[in-house]
Amino acid sequence: MPPAAAEHLTGLPRGTLFERLRRDCTREWHDYTHHSFVSGLAAGTLPEASFRTYLVQDYLYLIQYARAYALAVYKDPEVAGMRATARLLADLLDTELGLHIAYCRDWGLSEADLARQPESLELLAYTRFMLDCGQRGDILDLLVSLSACLVGYAEIGLRLLADPGTRRDGNRYLPWIEVYGGAHYVQLAAEGIVRLDALALSHGADARYAMLLRSFRTTVRLEAAFWTPSCEPAS
Amino acid sequence: MPPAAAEHLTGLPRGTLFERLRRDCTREWHDYTHHSFVSGLAAGTLPEASFRTYLVQDYLYLIQYARAYALAVYKDPEVAGMRATARLLADLLDTELGLHIAYCRDWGLSEADLARQPESLELLAYTRFMLDCGQRGDILDLLVSLSACLVGYAEIGLRLLADPGTRRDGNRYLPWIEVYGGAHYVQLAAEGIVRLDALALSHGADARYAMLLRSFRTTVRLEAAFWTPSCEPAS
Amino acid sequence: MPPAAAEHLTGLPRGTLFERLRRDCTREWHDYTHHSFVSGLAAGTLPEASFRTYLVQDYLYLIQYARAYALAVYKDPEVAGMRATARLLADLLDTELGLHIAYCRDWGLSEADLARQPESLELLAYTRFMLDCGQRGDILDLLVSLSACLVGYAEIGLRLLADPGTRRDGNRYLPWIEVYGGAHYVQLAAEGIVRLDALALSHGADARYAMLLRSFRTTVRLEAAFWTPSCEPAS
Amino acid sequence: MPPAAAEHLTGLPRGTLFERLRRDCTREWHDYTHHSFVSGLAAGTLPEASFRTYLVQDYLYLIQYARAYALAVYKDPEVAGMRATARLLADLLDTELGLHIAYCRDWGLSEADLARQPESLELLAYTRFMLDCGQRGDILDLLVSLSACLVGYAEIGLRLLADPGTRRDGNRYLPWIEVYGGAHYVQLAAEGIVRLDALALSHGADARYAMLLRSFRTTVRLEAAFWTPSCEPAS
Repeated sequence: MPPAAAEHLTGLPRGTLFERLRRDCTREWHDYTHHSFVSGLAAGTLPEASFRTYLVQDYLYLIQYARAYALAVYKDPEVAGMRATARLLADLLDTELGLHIAYCRDWGLSEADLARQPESLELLAYTRFMLDCGQRGDILDLLVSLSACLVGYAEIGLRLLADPGTRRDGNRYLPWIEVYGGAHYVQLAAEGIVRLDALALSHGADARYAMLLRSFRTTVRLEAAFWTPSCEPAS
Repeated sequence: MPPAAAEHLTGLPRGTLFERLRRDCTREWHDYTHHSFVSGLAAGTLPEASFRTYLVQDYLYLIQYARAYALAVYKDPEVAGMRATARLLADLLDTELGLHIAYCRDWGLSEADLARQPESLELLAYTRFMLDCGQRGDILDLLVSLSACLVGYAEIGLRLLADPGTRRDGNRYLPWIEVYGGAHYVQLAAEGIVRLDALALSHGADARYAMLLRSFRTTVRLEAAFWTPSCEPAS
Repeated sequence: MPPAAAEHLTGLPRGTLFERLRRDCTREWHDYTHHSFVSGLAAGTLPEASFRTYLVQDYLYLIQYARAYALAVYKDPEVAGMRATARLLADLLDTELGLHIAYCRDWGLSEADLARQPESLELLAYTRFMLDCGQRGDILDLLVSLSACLVGYAEIGLRLLADPGTRRDGNRYLPWIEVYGGAHYVQLAAEGIVRLDALALSHGADARYAMLLRSFRTTVRLEAAFWTPSCEPAS
Repeated sequence: MPPAAAEHLTGLPRGTLFERLRRDCTREWHDYTHHSFVSGLAAGTLPEASFRTYLVQDYLYLIQYARAYALAVYKDPEVAGMRATARLLADLLDTELGLHIAYCRDWGLSEADLARQPESLELLAYTRFMLDCGQRGDILDLLVSLSACLVGYAEIGLRLLADPGTRRDGNRYLPWIEVYGGAHYVQLAAEGIVRLDALALSHGADARYAMLLRSFRTTVRLEAAFWTPSCEPAS
């Protein structure tokens, strides 16, 4: 990670398993977090049709993401971990999904519109890969595969908010940036990093590092692909 | 179900898949809901040591039961179902488990005491069987296996509360009876029955009835065995 | 299915759940089984580079496909079914994968080459979707999601072998066509169809048809997409 | 492990994760491998009714044990591991289960008799706990939970065969002892120990040791309980 980038990440814990994973796939991480979709959000120049396509797929994504958190509750070996993750899960399904639906409404998309769309090839690849990491492996495999999304969005939000080049006036995408760079979401990401570090210790992440990195790299690639979903699985 | 028994069940939906399952293992259901442990609660004559043993195992049981609800969120094909179950799950881990811990404290058992105990043979058999029904099968298999506990406790609570023979004065077990026969818990059980009926329709319960009944009967037997757990898996 | 097409399918059972699923997504099934990749195999005009890319991904696919059959053994409610599927699985890993490796060697690809390649976006989407259908649902959900591949390849093989327009002389792809249209593979597909029909009956396929069709349609779309994999998840 | 005992174990690898686990629950391991059921086999004094009950439950056990091996194929991160386990699985379902059925026939139990019996409380606890270890955790968690059965039977067989006190003449249980102390089964157990050691290295067993030991101890206790199953889950 170049020093300049690190400066944006105030608020996210350092010296962690997550940071090691991120550093060991720097190129893929950059492709994901500096994708032209992201620059388009910052400049306010992203075509609205692209954003609408993304919003639909992101709604469908959240549903699978919630399934992955449910799986994490099931897999967790500690009551305290189960409780924390179950709270995240209820929040995801009750609050976040609701906000997403409200947000989509502002963009002219009703919940019925959202639910009717087919999952894109990119969505299927990304979400089912995460879920498979979780079912095939243990809680550490699962949470590593979830971390690229959780932390990447916070990092993008933090960077764009800190960047004087990000357009504020008349940028329809500013609310998106403010959500993911905002204190609430950054706090969730920071907690996720800390939790992952505790599991790294108890579940032998050092010995398993090569495998964990391989999964992590795949999820980071799939995050990048997800920015520009094709509309149909087989189109 | 004999008419006399039915009278106690005001508040629980009738004519459902659950009722059919219950009726088709009447003997096992009776052994479970009329177990001497239950009569001992009603009469206030159950030895306190037995109740303490039960409380410990019930704490350990709730943890596995929560894992099964997490699995149900993961398996649910509908967002509305995921949301409802995730709320139950958060409630189970935040509220119910907390109440259970508080209740155990009144009985001289700290949370550390609870967490230190080994799972009994009966607990292992019951909870891992439920979880296996869920992982092996679909959401219907899972919710059928959860229903014996969910509804049975409501039925026992309702019956004991309605029974003039239940001892009120100086019965240390009355709070237990009042929780499970109370409006809040009975409402949860009723919702569970209704939800199961919706899944019965969408997931072909009629064609699958023989298999569902076999699983249900096993869970009912295991519920009865659970009333009097042995303290160690291999004792 | 148009009558002309049906004639090619001698050897595959009719009037089954599989046939109903196939008929209810005729357009997607046609896109898959009449893909330009398939015509290129029949005419011997497919660029060799495309076939090599496909061979690599197909090797990686077989590994995930074997995992899905292993899951089917785990999920099967009957010993006879477990036994039949375990034999298929051992055959898949011992014989088919071996043949595939030998075949790839003829095309200049060593096993080390195969194992080094990243899974394509299309592969990830297809295989992890199948595995998720299996973990989320029951044995019927899993076998429906496996059937598009199992039967589609037999149907393609049978059709191309029966078609006088298929080029025989000097067609490097003829061995591929002869494997999938050959008696051994067609027999496997036929047995798969019969097995699915037995499960359709015992597991309530009629009541669950809308959900099963939705999964089936997605796998058929993903099969079509798989013919022309992109080489990297996020390329 | 006392030196005398170690001498019987010629043929089983030493200095392994398995040996460490076994040593760290010496008492439970002794209760399992020196159970009165085992002494009864060696002396030929075990009541035949006890052995028949055991044979029935062992048949039902093998089915669940095969499901656990299928899960291991699904979970394995390496093709070589998948292939080796799939061969074991096919062997288990085709050969071992067949031998078991033939053996039971000699004891007057038909396959129909076997399949009709309910799973005992001990069987349910043991097998569903193993399967849950596997679904909840990764391949290492699963194979640790399977090892108590795999290796314990070899150790018992080896010890009884080496013991001059074991009755040979007219001991109806000698064939059982000869199977598990025989070269073929001992080789399987030895391979299992070696495989576990490879996974211990790649999957961080040292860091995870406390959790692995807890699961292992539970399975060893459940093995001991399994020698004398009660006939019904809730009897």
